[in-house]
Amino acid sequence: MLIDFQHEAPCPIAQLLDLIGERWSFLIIRDAFYGIRRFDGFQKHLGISKKVLSTRLNTLVEAGILHKVLYQHSPDRYEYRLTAKGRELFPVLLTMMRWGNRWLVEEGEQTVELIHADCGGKTEGRLVCSHCEQPVTPARIKAVPGPGTTREVAQAFRQIIKKSNSEAGT
Amino acid sequence: MLIDFQHEAPCPIAQLLDLIGERWSFLIIRDAFYGIRRFDGFQKHLGISKKVLSTRLNTLVEAGILHKVLYQHSPDRYEYRLTAKGRELFPVLLTMMRWGNRWLVEEGEQTVELIHADCGGKTEGRLVCSHCEQPVTPARIKAVPGPGTTREVAQAFRQIIKKSNSEAGT
Repeated sequence: MLIDFQHEAPCPIAQLLDLIGERWSFLIIRDAFYGIRRFDGFQKHLGISKKVLSTRLNTLVEAGILHKVLYQHSPDRYEYRLTAKGRELFPVLLTMMRWGNRWLVEEGEQTVELIHADCGGKTEGRLVCSHCEQPVTPARIKAVPGPGTTREVAQAFRQIIKKSNSEAGT
Repeated sequence: MLIDFQHEAPCPIAQLLDLIGERWSFLIIRDAFYGIRRFDGFQKHLGISKKVLSTRLNTLVEAGILHKVLYQHSPDRYEYRLTAKGRELFPVLLTMMRWGNRWLVEEGEQTVELIHADCGGKTEGRLVCSHCEQPVTPARIKAVPGPGTTREVAQAFRQIIKKSNSEAGT
């Protein structure tokens, strides 16, 4: 059976990437978390063309990740602020920062560190189970088909994994 | 003072995006977590051209995120497996999946769910402080300059945020 995975199974990761999976979009969201709100601020920090910045900001507003707030009349000027949807991207950015700092930046060369207000300690963020609060690691997590998948798609996917993995079949 | 941020401050998030911030790279890593290891498996699931897949796999091997393991002789055939560096991308993928499922997928339409082996419960993963284990949220985290930043860059950045934010200056 031929299963068109891209069509049949809109993976949440693929959907996120379709929406904001472009270098500048991620970096604009990062800067918004840093507290930058105005066009000039983003432009100065990112060093991109106004045209590209403008397009990306509009995309993020349309996606409901940023919203525009008027801060000056005649001429009207807007700030870009994170919505609730945008703020919930924080764990994605934080885990990216952690990985980048660990694997791509030399020890002692980190340009940014995070302080946790509650304890005052340097923090990296750690993933725990939202249910039992124990650590979450690839070995302790099993992905299962959700209600949005058909039995056929799930089966075809298991078949691909099985055929693609010398250990799964033995 | 003109500060070339892109050059002076190699942000860990920007570095991650430079390395793997391309839709297919993320999706190949996702599939590797699902257990896909062979070229044909990735190709079948992703539905991309062999040429693009081959390029992306090589990039991920060069980046040290996947490594090649010989599984068949004459003709020699290789599997692609996640390295330790690659496995540590798990939190990035998990937080992306969580956000996508929450904000982009209709309730009841989730194609994938995660079960935590320790407790058997459905889990989303939750970020806590690596120091005190209390929840980590944007409001409870303060980003401070790391040892790899100069005083000038940090100051110029603070200035941008101040100018770009009506509340910061008041």
